[in-house]
Amino acid sequence: MLESTVAAIRPLDEAAMAAARELQGRLTKPAGSLGALEPLSVRLAGLAGSCPPPLPEPAAVAIFAGDHGVHAQGVTPWPQEVTAQMIGNFLAGGAVVNAFARQAGASVTVVDVGVATPLPVDPAATGAAGPRLVAANVRAGTRDMTGTAALTRDEARAAVETGIRVAGELVAAGAGILLTGDMGIGNTTPAAALVAAFTGADPAEVTGRGTGVDDETYARKVGVVRAALARHAPDPTDPLGVLAAVGGLEHAALAGLILGAAARRVPVLLDGVIAVSAALAAAAFAPDAVGAMIAGHRSAEPGATVALRHLALEPLVDLGLRLGEGTGALLALPVVTGAVRVLHEVATFDSAGVAEK
Amino acid sequence: MLESTVAAIRPLDEAAMAAARELQGRLTKPAGSLGALEPLSVRLAGLAGSCPPPLPEPAAVAIFAGDHGVHAQGVTPWPQEVTAQMIGNFLAGGAVVNAFARQAGASVTVVDVGVATPLPVDPAATGAAGPRLVAANVRAGTRDMTGTAALTRDEARAAVETGIRVAGELVAAGAGILLTGDMGIGNTTPAAALVAAFTGADPAEVTGRGTGVDDETYARKVGVVRAALARHAPDPTDPLGVLAAVGGLEHAALAGLILGAAARRVPVLLDGVIAVSAALAAAAFAPDAVGAMIAGHRSAEPGATVALRHLALEPLVDLGLRLGEGTGALLALPVVTGAVRVLHEVATFDSAGVAEK
Repeated sequence: MLESTVAAIRPLDEAAMAAARELQGRLTKPAGSLGALEPLSVRLAGLAGSCPPPLPEPAAVAIFAGDHGVHAQGVTPWPQEVTAQMIGNFLAGGAVVNAFARQAGASVTVVDVGVATPLPVDPAATGAAGPRLVAANVRAGTRDMTGTAALTRDEARAAVETGIRVAGELVAAGAGILLTGDMGIGNTTPAAALVAAFTGADPAEVTGRGTGVDDETYARKVGVVRAALARHAPDPTDPLGVLAAVGGLEHAALAGLILGAAARRVPVLLDGVIAVSAALAAAAFAPDAVGAMIAGHRSAEPGATVALRHLALEPLVDLGLRLGEGTGALLALPVVTGAVRVLHEVATFDSAGVAEK
Repeated sequence: MLESTVAAIRPLDEAAMAAARELQGRLTKPAGSLGALEPLSVRLAGLAGSCPPPLPEPAAVAIFAGDHGVHAQGVTPWPQEVTAQMIGNFLAGGAVVNAFARQAGASVTVVDVGVATPLPVDPAATGAAGPRLVAANVRAGTRDMTGTAALTRDEARAAVETGIRVAGELVAAGAGILLTGDMGIGNTTPAAALVAAFTGADPAEVTGRGTGVDDETYARKVGVVRAALARHAPDPTDPLGVLAAVGGLEHAALAGLILGAAARRVPVLLDGVIAVSAALAAAAFAPDAVGAMIAGHRSAEPGATVALRHLALEPLVDLGLRLGEGTGALLALPVVTGAVRVLHEVATFDSAGVAEK
């Protein structure tokens, strides 16, 4: 499924992009006055292969949750059980991602791709009136990457293919845009390792303070990322190998979600550093997948900025968020919708009887 | 009316702000992880005097339109008639501000506070199912500020009081937040003059290319701003005098809208350079009015950044927009609503059964 998905990912449609550029020039506004929204609208026309492209509605947030063996190295002050507890919070509608999703009219799907502790919710009891839980646990958290590979190649593939499958299901159910979400105590450590592995950046440059660690924990975290990379020397041209060596199950699944969206030519709005580290893996599998990616926001984590630069993506929102869950992507969603809406609804100089300069 | 409005503007409520800070610390997210949204939510609690503050709904965009005698100096390639033509476009629902307002569920009110050419629409025929036109023309455009004061003090006051009155009407009709909009061919020239007058910045530092002028027009525009300031030497501690000397009718009315919102303790979301130049005037009338101001976006106009720094406001969105109309404010609105929604809807660690670090 991974190979056929990668093979289905194609470049943007140049004719649709040319039509969108031409239409932007006839709308009742000075040329270029919508800034970053104009090239975004052009790219979405290229992705859809039509001008205007469809409005990116409805939106679906997919939150992939996993735990991390590297938690044992003391890279975060939060107990591992919080991953499962927060899944309970997501399904009860009490987290920030739920508040933002309600506001944006987006659905929330939580996917257990690798939580280590028992979930407080029965998947069968979810989804009727609120968020849905998908049980797809590949293993109960990764292994500690400082001692051994976090995952086998087969486990990494299973997680990637879970993401591809979820993308397919959400698009089949009508989603016009997918938003990446994540939950996993300790998951900024594998994210930093992935960013370093795919971009060649130094661990100190891409490792951040996550949910807020002190100086001592931060220094240990940089050392853990450096040690894992030294031990495995992952090859950035082998994304499955990189994900297996130093990734997380939610990172791998997010790479799959991105590939699945790109293959179906549906835009995927990236959240923070977990998402963009996964996006590097997706781009390594299929460089044309970048055409489907929209950078929702610039996470406060330094690795996010390094990854976005590598992907040549400019984030839409930059408000110092470092929460994850999909919250940054949800804040950016109205900008994406607005960019497309302009092509649908704004009058031309001709039709409105407005003089040009 | 101006004096009583200014007198009604009071500092933020410290007790409500303390309560909001305390609540932010108990919600199920790492402390500070919502970045700029957290202090924004605290400030809005201080403005409302309650925690949580009301959701900023419904939203109302007020677009003040005027023309400019300085148009005769060749500061823009657009014909003056476009101001009136764009009002027709706003009322027909065909402009970018209309598309963004529909998306955000915001009402649109267009106020003719000083258009020079005949309007294509009868005010009485508007507002039933779409945008409303308010006829409040103080004069048919300003005078050319390079030759004489743009307005008399009485005209400037009439425009400011129009803005105060519109704010009062919108709040009385239920608006929970006001968004500033503007339309006026040539209006970035008086905006630059206002920013220079209130901040002391050099005209070259605050004058931009507006809707897109060439190098020759840009040089002329800087010269026009410099000449007007040299001629009038406006006193920044006399905001009515500054507005009369080098302002525009829409700038003066926007200053009034901001004062009216602040007096009623309703937040006002600022759009681009026209709005923030008016905000400088409002802050000169009443320094505590800044507590009600939210910077929607960072306009591509350099004067906007100088003005925001002077007001110590950080914009929420920075996407290179330079359209005006209220478009940048509308893109920022979901961020404001989201910041407040968190205080209403997110579970606490205690209530959700999530462990703390």
